[in-house]
Amino acid sequence: MSVDAGRDTVTDEAVGSLGADTDPRLRELLSALIRHVHDFARETRLTQAEWERAIGFLTATGQTCTDTRQEFILLSDVLGLSMLVETLNADRAPGATESTVLGPFHLTESPVRELGADIDLVGSGEPCVVSGRVLSEDGTPLPGAALDVWQADADGFYDVQQPDVQPAGNGRGLFTTDAAGRFWFRTCVPSPYPIPTDGPVGDLLRATGRHPYRPAHIHFIATAEGHTPVTTHIFVAGSDYLDSDAVFAVKHSLVQDFAETDDPSLAREFGIPNPFRHARFDLVLAPGRTS
Amino acid sequence: MSVDAGRDTVTDEAVGSLGADTDPRLRELLSALIRHVHDFARETRLTQAEWERAIGFLTATGQTCTDTRQEFILLSDVLGLSMLVETLNADRAPGATESTVLGPFHLTESPVRELGADIDLVGSGEPCVVSGRVLSEDGTPLPGAALDVWQADADGFYDVQQPDVQPAGNGRGLFTTDAAGRFWFRTCVPSPYPIPTDGPVGDLLRATGRHPYRPAHIHFIATAEGHTPVTTHIFVAGSDYLDSDAVFAVKHSLVQDFAETDDPSLAREFGIPNPFRHARFDLVLAPGRTS
Repeated sequence: MSVDAGRDTVTDEAVGSLGADTDPRLRELLSALIRHVHDFARETRLTQAEWERAIGFLTATGQTCTDTRQEFILLSDVLGLSMLVETLNADRAPGATESTVLGPFHLTESPVRELGADIDLVGSGEPCVVSGRVLSEDGTPLPGAALDVWQADADGFYDVQQPDVQPAGNGRGLFTTDAAGRFWFRTCVPSPYPIPTDGPVGDLLRATGRHPYRPAHIHFIATAEGHTPVTTHIFVAGSDYLDSDAVFAVKHSLVQDFAETDDPSLAREFGIPNPFRHARFDLVLAPGRTS
Repeated sequence: MSVDAGRDTVTDEAVGSLGADTDPRLRELLSALIRHVHDFARETRLTQAEWERAIGFLTATGQTCTDTRQEFILLSDVLGLSMLVETLNADRAPGATESTVLGPFHLTESPVRELGADIDLVGSGEPCVVSGRVLSEDGTPLPGAALDVWQADADGFYDVQQPDVQPAGNGRGLFTTDAAGRFWFRTCVPSPYPIPTDGPVGDLLRATGRHPYRPAHIHFIATAEGHTPVTTHIFVAGSDYLDSDAVFAVKHSLVQDFAETDDPSLAREFGIPNPFRHARFDLVLAPGRTS
C-alpha cells in the first residue's frame, strides 16, 4: 500500500516495495541507500529548489563523462568516498603495502613494456628511474608479478586528457617482475596537478573554497599469483599538497624519496645523464585471493 | 591534514575540507551528504565492485537524460525521494489541496489555452470534461489563477515521449480561471501507464521485482496571487495501481470520480457526445508566499 505515503511513512513504503525475490545483497544495499537518502532529506529539510539543483548537478555529472573522463569517480574522490571504500576493502595485513584510490584516469589498458623501458614517451620532464621489488608479506620475492603503472606528465596531464598532444600510452606501462621479483623503468618525475575543474566537480570545489590539487604521485596496481592485489600510489617526498590532497588519498607509508643519485653505471644502463633522480621501494602483497 | 585518512577519519577530513567562506546552507547540505554517504558505505561494507557498479549506474542515468527525458528525476521518484521532498515542503494548511510529485514530464511550457479547449489534440481516448474552481482556503474563489495541466494520452505516453506520433503540446494546457475562479476543459480519460523502463531505472525495477505502473492521473500546478502554489495530481477513481503507484504519489484526497454524466446541454457546450465522463473538483490554495 503506497497510498498517503508521507513524511514519516514513505521510507518504509519505498523499502517495502522491494520484491521478495530481490537478491539479498541488492536488497540490503538499496534499503540502506533509501534510508540514508531519506534521512538526509528529512534532517536538512531539503527544499524543492535544492532538490532540483541536485538533480541538475547529477545530470551534468553524468553527461560530463566520456570514454576518457569519469566525472562520477571524481565526485566520489572529492567527497572522500573513494578513499573510504578503498580503505574498507583493503586487506589490513600489517606488512603489506597500503592501498589508496584508483582515481579517474585508469581508463585505458596500459601498454605492455619491457623492464627498463621509458614510459615518458615525449621526454617532457626531469628524467628519473623507478625500481624495486614485488614481495610477499614474508619477504619472498614474487617473480612474474604484474605491475600496472600510470602517471601524469610533467605538466600534470594524463595522456587521455590530451589526445592531441600526448601519444596514447604516454606515462603508462604494464611491467612483469623478473626472476628475482624486480622491476625497473624510466620516467619523468611527476608533478602536482589539479584534478579537472571544468565540470560540475570543479564548480563544487569552487563553491566550497577547496583547491583542486593532488600531490605528485605515480599510480600502481600490483598483482601476483596467490596474493591480494594492491591499488596504490607512490607520492613524491617533498611535493606540494601532501597535506591537503583534493581526494584525501595520501598515506605516510606511500611517500617515497625520489633521491638525487650519482651512479654513472646505472645512468649508463638507463641511458640518462648522471646524476639523476631515483625512487627505490618494494611493493609488498599479502597472500590471499587473487582477484 | 588529509594524510592517512582512513576508515574512521576520512569523513571528518572530507567535511573539514569545506572552506570557511562556504555558504552556510551549502556547508550544511554537503556535510550531511558526506556523513550519510560514508555511513552508507561503512554500514554495508560496500565493496569495490559494488562501488564500480554504482558509478556505472549513475553515469548511465545521467547519460539517459535528454531535453525530453529526466532519468534522475525518475530515479528520485522510484526511491520515494521525490514524494518525501514534496511532502516535507508542502504547506500543511488543513483545508488546502494536498500536493504530490512533479514527475519527470513537466519538461516543456504548456501552451496557453482558452477555457473549454480540448487538450486531447488527437482524439485518442474516451472524451471527458474536467471542471471546477480554484479557491482560497476560506472558500473565496480566485479569479485569474493559473492552472498548468499535463497528462499522458490514452495509450499512456506524454507528447515529449512520442515526438513523431503526438503533436507538441498534446495533453497540455495553461488555463486561467474566470471571474468566478472557475476552470473547465476537455480531454480524454487518462490511463495507467508504465514509467519508462528502457533505461537504468527500468533495470533497477526489474532487479527488485517492482512493476513500473502509475495509476491514471492528470497533473496540475495551480498558482494564484498571494497564495502558495500547489503541484499535484488528480487520480482517476477505480484506476488500477492506486494502491501500488511506482512512485508512491497517491493520496486519498486526490482520487476523483470521473463520473458517467447525462447532461445534453453541457455535452453540447463541449461538443462531445452525451453521455460523457466528467471530473469535478476544486483546487484549494493556502494564503502565503507566491513562488
